[in-house]
Amino acid sequence: MSSKDPLVIFTPSGKRGRFAAGTPVLTAARQLGVDLDSVCGGRGICSKCQITPAFGDFPKHGVTVAPDALSGWNAVEARYDEKRGLKPGRRLGCQAQILSDVVIDVPPESQVHRQVVRKAATERVIEADPATRLYLVDVAEPDMHEPSGDLQRLRAALKLTWGVKAPDVPLPLIARLQPALRKGNWQVTLAVHQPHDGPARLIDIWPGFFEGPLLGLAVDLGSTTIAGHLCDLSDGRVLASAGVMNPQIRFGEDLMSRVSYAMMNAGGAAEMTGAVRAALNDLARQTIADAGADPRSVVETVFVCNPVMHHLLLGIDPVELGQAPFALASSDSVSLAAAELGMDAVNPQARTYILPCIAGHVGADAAAVALAEAPGAREELSLVIDVGTNAEILLGNSSRVLACSSPTGPAFEGAQISSGQRAAPGAIERIRIDPATKEPRFQVIGCDLWSDAPGFADATATTGITGICGSGIIEAVAEMRMAGLVDASGLIGSAAQTGTPRSEPEGRTHAYLIHDGSPGGGPRISVTQGDIRAIQLAKSALYAGARLLMDEFGIDTVDRVVLAGAFGAHISPKHAMVLGMIPDVPLGAVTAAGNAAGTGARIALLNRAARSEIETTVRTITKVETAIEPRFQEHFVAANALPHATAPFSELRKVAPLPEVSFNTGGDPADGGRRRRRRRG
Amino acid sequence: MSSKDPLVIFTPSGKRGRFAAGTPVLTAARQLGVDLDSVCGGRGICSKCQITPAFGDFPKHGVTVAPDALSGWNAVEARYDEKRGLKPGRRLGCQAQILSDVVIDVPPESQVHRQVVRKAATERVIEADPATRLYLVDVAEPDMHEPSGDLQRLRAALKLTWGVKAPDVPLPLIARLQPALRKGNWQVTLAVHQPHDGPARLIDIWPGFFEGPLLGLAVDLGSTTIAGHLCDLSDGRVLASAGVMNPQIRFGEDLMSRVSYAMMNAGGAAEMTGAVRAALNDLARQTIADAGADPRSVVETVFVCNPVMHHLLLGIDPVELGQAPFALASSDSVSLAAAELGMDAVNPQARTYILPCIAGHVGADAAAVALAEAPGAREELSLVIDVGTNAEILLGNSSRVLACSSPTGPAFEGAQISSGQRAAPGAIERIRIDPATKEPRFQVIGCDLWSDAPGFADATATTGITGICGSGIIEAVAEMRMAGLVDASGLIGSAAQTGTPRSEPEGRTHAYLIHDGSPGGGPRISVTQGDIRAIQLAKSALYAGARLLMDEFGIDTVDRVVLAGAFGAHISPKHAMVLGMIPDVPLGAVTAAGNAAGTGARIALLNRAARSEIETTVRTITKVETAIEPRFQEHFVAANALPHATAPFSELRKVAPLPEVSFNTGGDPADGGRRRRRRRG
Repeated sequence: MSSKDPLVIFTPSGKRGRFAAGTPVLTAARQLGVDLDSVCGGRGICSKCQITPAFGDFPKHGVTVAPDALSGWNAVEARYDEKRGLKPGRRLGCQAQILSDVVIDVPPESQVHRQVVRKAATERVIEADPATRLYLVDVAEPDMHEPSGDLQRLRAALKLTWGVKAPDVPLPLIARLQPALRKGNWQVTLAVHQPHDGPARLIDIWPGFFEGPLLGLAVDLGSTTIAGHLCDLSDGRVLASAGVMNPQIRFGEDLMSRVSYAMMNAGGAAEMTGAVRAALNDLARQTIADAGADPRSVVETVFVCNPVMHHLLLGIDPVELGQAPFALASSDSVSLAAAELGMDAVNPQARTYILPCIAGHVGADAAAVALAEAPGAREELSLVIDVGTNAEILLGNSSRVLACSSPTGPAFEGAQISSGQRAAPGAIERIRIDPATKEPRFQVIGCDLWSDAPGFADATATTGITGICGSGIIEAVAEMRMAGLVDASGLIGSAAQTGTPRSEPEGRTHAYLIHDGSPGGGPRISVTQGDIRAIQLAKSALYAGARLLMDEFGIDTVDRVVLAGAFGAHISPKHAMVLGMIPDVPLGAVTAAGNAAGTGARIALLNRAARSEIETTVRTITKVETAIEPRFQEHFVAANALPHATAPFSELRKVAPLPEVSFNTGGDPADGGRRRRRRRG
Repeated sequence: MSSKDPLVIFTPSGKRGRFAAGTPVLTAARQLGVDLDSVCGGRGICSKCQITPAFGDFPKHGVTVAPDALSGWNAVEARYDEKRGLKPGRRLGCQAQILSDVVIDVPPESQVHRQVVRKAATERVIEADPATRLYLVDVAEPDMHEPSGDLQRLRAALKLTWGVKAPDVPLPLIARLQPALRKGNWQVTLAVHQPHDGPARLIDIWPGFFEGPLLGLAVDLGSTTIAGHLCDLSDGRVLASAGVMNPQIRFGEDLMSRVSYAMMNAGGAAEMTGAVRAALNDLARQTIADAGADPRSVVETVFVCNPVMHHLLLGIDPVELGQAPFALASSDSVSLAAAELGMDAVNPQARTYILPCIAGHVGADAAAVALAEAPGAREELSLVIDVGTNAEILLGNSSRVLACSSPTGPAFEGAQISSGQRAAPGAIERIRIDPATKEPRFQVIGCDLWSDAPGFADATATTGITGICGSGIIEAVAEMRMAGLVDASGLIGSAAQTGTPRSEPEGRTHAYLIHDGSPGGGPRISVTQGDIRAIQLAKSALYAGARLLMDEFGIDTVDRVVLAGAFGAHISPKHAMVLGMIPDVPLGAVTAAGNAAGTGARIALLNRAARSEIETTVRTITKVETAIEPRFQEHFVAANALPHATAPFSELRKVAPLPEVSFNTGGDPADGGRRRRRRRG
């Protein structure tokens, strides 16, 4: 290029250069390394390279752009506009030629590496850089005098046009290659998987131009619930989300009981593997149907899960995870064909990536939380708690990060709770109890009204009021404590003691009635003494895990607490602190991160570099094994009371003075005998 | 090491060095790069490192070896000798320590790269360097404080002990890892596949020490017959061989009729794929049973085949191979899991390697012939003909190599011959006809006696005399020609014309009776006019292919002819030349190479470098397409006569003067109307 050649300035990158008049904008962009997408390689087919030229004076850039700085609208653009519509001012970068100095804006949707996941909490931006992408290639026709396989000519075209190195091609695709090439008149679109950790692979082939989209499924496979998000790999949009119960629950509610099931029953592990794989297929089918997508378009899946789920998903007997030294069969990330996991609801060649496990009890879900929340990227000391049937806990800052897993049990997810249910329409998710009248009011999922608001009955007529979900039970117990219905030991007072007929006898203990739906044929929803005990066990385990990490780190306070998990977004920091679930920090330092494990899965789905990143990160994380730490037991026992006598609780008292109550039934609590330490569940 | 350290000289390599007194012989061998085997890495378990020390004066080496040059026989050696026996004079290289100057001989069976395939014809030596080998490793036990997966510690041990880079581990093996490690008390033997063209893979795992052997199956998959050899990968020994008919024959005898079947019948290709895969499993099972081997020990399979068989084996519709430009779906070599081809008779993780195809009609079988016979490695011009249902023909020397495939049809394999059968006990394989009496005598497979020898009837009582195999029919026709029973056009004379009642009328033509078994309930075996025509077509195609390559090379004579193929070893050069099957060379320049394709398969099975070699070689081979060459047709038509008026035939005349006969039936030969050009078959 010479100094007389037209100057081209791209925004927002600011990249600039001079190009011979007549150079297509796409060509200039490529030579300058400007992030401008293209699937068809400049053939005017894919429309991915749309750009917006700007005209007039640009003193900042020192150029004036003439109205005819680009070549005129051409037939390719006109046809595309007619068939699909181009936004006003848009041009196709492969068609518009540079004639004189020009400023070209690349809109976000034309960028390859567009931002797809933005985590406000961590100010991290994830760009789309999926492992699987589409490439349009024109393949040379066979020549009897220079015989070579169609596959070899296809690989050569892919290398020549796109610089993509020879992908492995699975047998079923080799078998489909010849008809596709001939049907597409020697032009085909390829979905090529180029992972961060292995050779490229052909995933699918379409005759002619296939515009996509390619989709991916990110799954947070929990002990109790399985949540999946179907995403567009090119821009990260979530097209459909769905959650299902983990069918392994019928083999045991917590992890340890599932490990026991595997140990006690020949073929038990295989049975659980089959169950969870079937559920994953159902989840895939459901999200694909919800999004109206083609199963064949789903080419990537990412799973995050705890180690027992991880092993059962992979078909590995988890028995070693049930006993010291809790050895994982494999701790590294896993890359394999989705079909190897029996995933038949997606593209037959779809790939699966499973994040690395951190330790025997700290799984790929914890790794996903570390990826999403990146505590090691901050100066402040963060305590990240992902609440599920097991709590994954991370503590750290830029100097180091510790991790452990704590066996909270499924109570936080509404399981093992008398009126518990999973978060679904009709479930009580918010509750307030008046400290004076002891009367409750509540909200149910699917309705914005509080239960004491006019019209609530009508608004909930369809869903009914069916139970209490995980966040609801936490609020209920905390509110009961604040209203003086429960004492510090966790005992529910009798009607005589609390002064409300909602304290109903239940065996030798009492239950607090929240809602009586029985006149209308609905359930009576109450919080029983057993529910309180389950929550106490769960929150003690959670707290003890966090304290253990703090001990290891050598600190007594943290700068911030991030509550993540399937119901992390719904948990009330105030109530969590009333319960003593989390260590003491100012209320304002507690943030909810939503489903951080799910977000981590989605990040790994959309960005190859993130996979490398988390694989490196987990190696630097210090693992703390709660199961063998005597201090964990000590913290656990000490954390049983409601609440701890702590600063934040004092802070809360200012809001709602705590009645200093203490109940005594004259004997042991009815459930005292069956109180047990729940391990790994 | 210092100049005072003991000097160690290894034979036969001659490698020498000084080592500190007390150094084990195995350690010294490794440091010097001496080829001394070991699976257990020096633990005294595997006994692979046996050596023979030599004592006394060695003026040639300038040393005198004292009787106590090595440390004394130790407990490990004594135990091994007691359990399994050590040959006299042998020591275990890992146990015997060097104390003073010593000469150590490494016997062939202790060498890793021992010679396993020696081709006398080409003076080529193939060393054992199989892709899959055994490694004994001691894996670190899990540590809760430094948690890592068992797989990760296993990989680290493999790297540390053997320098083997982290292998990929398939899911079913990850699932078996933990029990194996614990059963073997953290010592396991691994079968690791380290191919020439991809990442290492774990194939199997055994608790503790597994001594092997590892086996491999080399298969020549022909259109008509499938031949397999089960080999010990460490020394190349053939433990069992078996041949079965290709069950695809029921879909069409030649290749083109199978392609037609695939075109005409929906699912036809898949049906043929299923049939051949089942036959390969049967073949594997049979050889494994014959060798008394464990199916799990069979970890490698190699297939060679023509392009249509290649595609049908891989599950690719061969339709494109049936029409110009005869495009292969894939021409490169194929590496995949044997299970992907439905091979369930071998180790579930066994690997398969299929040699590259040369062109649309020149397959992996031709590549295997090129590998075994290496015409490009010689100065002389070689014509290599692998006779089967298709003939693979190579012509070349060190300057260049040409290849083509010629559609001879299955006549040479005894198919489409009235009394034809495959080579099996009871089949006539040799025949001589007295030119004076016109009486035949013959040999059958399974009996060394000629039919006119005393005791022949008794010797063949069990097998009977059941038909004529491929080499038998060639000899029969040639002998009939030399005895004046057939004229140059291929017509069989009547009894009146030939003077023997063995010329029997058959419709409007005649047949020559070789053996009448009907009195004993056996078949009447004769050569019909149709048989002659089938052989004429086959030999014309073969000759035309060879001539076409000679035209391309620009030469009229070759220096040597190598006859290979399933029955190449049994073919008589003299009779082949009488028939005009091959171009004219002195009889002494014709050698039989046996099943060169099968040998090529076996070489590729046993030696990784050979796989790289043939992949490089096929790219340099000039492909000639017989189907589109008008000169092929010309040569074909011109070659129809029996024999050509050629020099070697004149030479033969000196041996047996050719009766100048010419028969005329007064009309067209009966089969003239159904004479057809057989394409690709």
